[in-house]
Amino acid sequence: MTAEAAKGAGRGAGHWAHPTALVESREVGEGTRVWAFAHVMEGARVGRNCNLGEHVFVERGAAVGDNVTLKNNVQVWEGVTIEDDVFVGPSAVFTNDRHPRSPRAEAAGARYDGKDWLEGVTVRRGASIGANATIMCGVEIGMYAMVGAGAVVTRAVPAHALAVGCPARVAGHVCRCGQTLREGDNGAQACPACARRYVWSGGDLVERD
Amino acid sequence: MTAEAAKGAGRGAGHWAHPTALVESREVGEGTRVWAFAHVMEGARVGRNCNLGEHVFVERGAAVGDNVTLKNNVQVWEGVTIEDDVFVGPSAVFTNDRHPRSPRAEAAGARYDGKDWLEGVTVRRGASIGANATIMCGVEIGMYAMVGAGAVVTRAVPAHALAVGCPARVAGHVCRCGQTLREGDNGAQACPACARRYVWSGGDLVERD
Amino acid sequence: MTAEAAKGAGRGAGHWAHPTALVESREVGEGTRVWAFAHVMEGARVGRNCNLGEHVFVERGAAVGDNVTLKNNVQVWEGVTIEDDVFVGPSAVFTNDRHPRSPRAEAAGARYDGKDWLEGVTVRRGASIGANATIMCGVEIGMYAMVGAGAVVTRAVPAHALAVGCPARVAGHVCRCGQTLREGDNGAQACPACARRYVWSGGDLVERD
Repeated sequence: MTAEAAKGAGRGAGHWAHPTALVESREVGEGTRVWAFAHVMEGARVGRNCNLGEHVFVERGAAVGDNVTLKNNVQVWEGVTIEDDVFVGPSAVFTNDRHPRSPRAEAAGARYDGKDWLEGVTVRRGASIGANATIMCGVEIGMYAMVGAGAVVTRAVPAHALAVGCPARVAGHVCRCGQTLREGDNGAQACPACARRYVWSGGDLVERD
Repeated sequence: MTAEAAKGAGRGAGHWAHPTALVESREVGEGTRVWAFAHVMEGARVGRNCNLGEHVFVERGAAVGDNVTLKNNVQVWEGVTIEDDVFVGPSAVFTNDRHPRSPRAEAAGARYDGKDWLEGVTVRRGASIGANATIMCGVEIGMYAMVGAGAVVTRAVPAHALAVGCPARVAGHVCRCGQTLREGDNGAQACPACARRYVWSGGDLVERD
Repeated sequence: MTAEAAKGAGRGAGHWAHPTALVESREVGEGTRVWAFAHVMEGARVGRNCNLGEHVFVERGAAVGDNVTLKNNVQVWEGVTIEDDVFVGPSAVFTNDRHPRSPRAEAAGARYDGKDWLEGVTVRRGASIGANATIMCGVEIGMYAMVGAGAVVTRAVPAHALAVGCPARVAGHVCRCGQTLREGDNGAQACPACARRYVWSGGDLVERD
């Protein structure tokens, strides 16, 4: 699709998709690109100006905001909500079931008759999830947080925290721009790259005006 | 394929496959569904009533039982045996070579002329493997065991054990239904969800009649 | 393509690709095979006699040598250099950005206007990277090194080292053929499989003539 055509098209029509991609949803925002072998199911919502890499899968019931980057192989399941401006690295994996059994096995009983098994994940605005990280269901990743590559996240990650390892632990803090913050007096933090400054307020690291 | 057609078809014909899927095997059981961009090679065996997610790959020589769920991106290599009722989470990874080298490199010598390099994995009936877990070759995952998301399994996981971490360690036990068991007197365990009870017998946790 | 045709074709034409694969690069070497749903972008370089598994992705600016095996789902990003004879296990993940943010988000500022964000990975000749391993950018994997399955590599791995865990630590050494070396007197090491011998020289483990 040409840029002209994209401009002319309405929301849900103004996206671009590779010929091998499967876009069944009518709720894919303008300017969003969907690359080869990716699949956005009917009933999935994807915002504007996103980039969905190859082999990405967005399931019915999943929600992706605006300006989001999903690198190759990322699957966004039902129950997963990704806010605006988020980066999800290649092959990072979300989950939505804490006690999974094969739904077709007798032992699963009536577990999958309804949706009681479903436990979501929320990734707040501007956060980044590193390549090949694993995110347990029931977890929230805070605004502008950063999950390290390969980390296994088993509990909430606060805003601006850098979480690394297996299980993931907070190992520092990051700026809105992504750089690691440097700690000064009274726990105040400053970004060596863009000079933004942060202070602690009621347990949260917040940007100083 | 309609449900009627599936009923009428014989084993190996009564499965359903997405138009983009590649199903070359004639041994795919009735009622099994194979989703987009998945591939079941000739010589791979897949049972009845399975669900093979997008981008799943089942190699020649691999065996998958009945009622199995393979979520997106799972690859089942030659040497990997998956029994009935198993759940394999998204992007979980099996291996079948403990000392891999590129077979086309001179340094590999004659290693890949035969099959001496091949070391399998067996996943016993009803077990669950968490999302993005890694299973080393030579390992057996016991009946109704559960491997946590992101775990790296380097040795056998006993029946009903919950194995988490890198390397994976037993951190508890789970019921046939998937819930974490609660320990009572003498190590006896009970399921808070379905009330099944388990006792130790000769080193194994077994369901009490 | 028949073997005869492959012989007759020039470099960049003498490869074979599955009908569903996307090979846009003109720099794919003779004898290389590209399997289903894989993608080699224009501007990516892949040597001769390689095997690129299903869903493999090689990005513009990436370089892959001769006799390389990339198993299913491996993505080779811009900035990643893979020398001859390397094995990359299934779903192993490379990275090329230490502080990723969604390039389309305002918070990313001008970070993605140029290539200052780009930090590469080099995998030296004959090395092996285990299944589902994660390789942080800025790292070099030494000649004939072996990264364990599921490892998270955050710093350089010396030649012939075996690196396992999260974060990865050196846990032993491996022969050019892939087998674990046995340590003898003075730190000298010998391969129980092929009888090659190694000695320490200036901090490096080197093969004895």
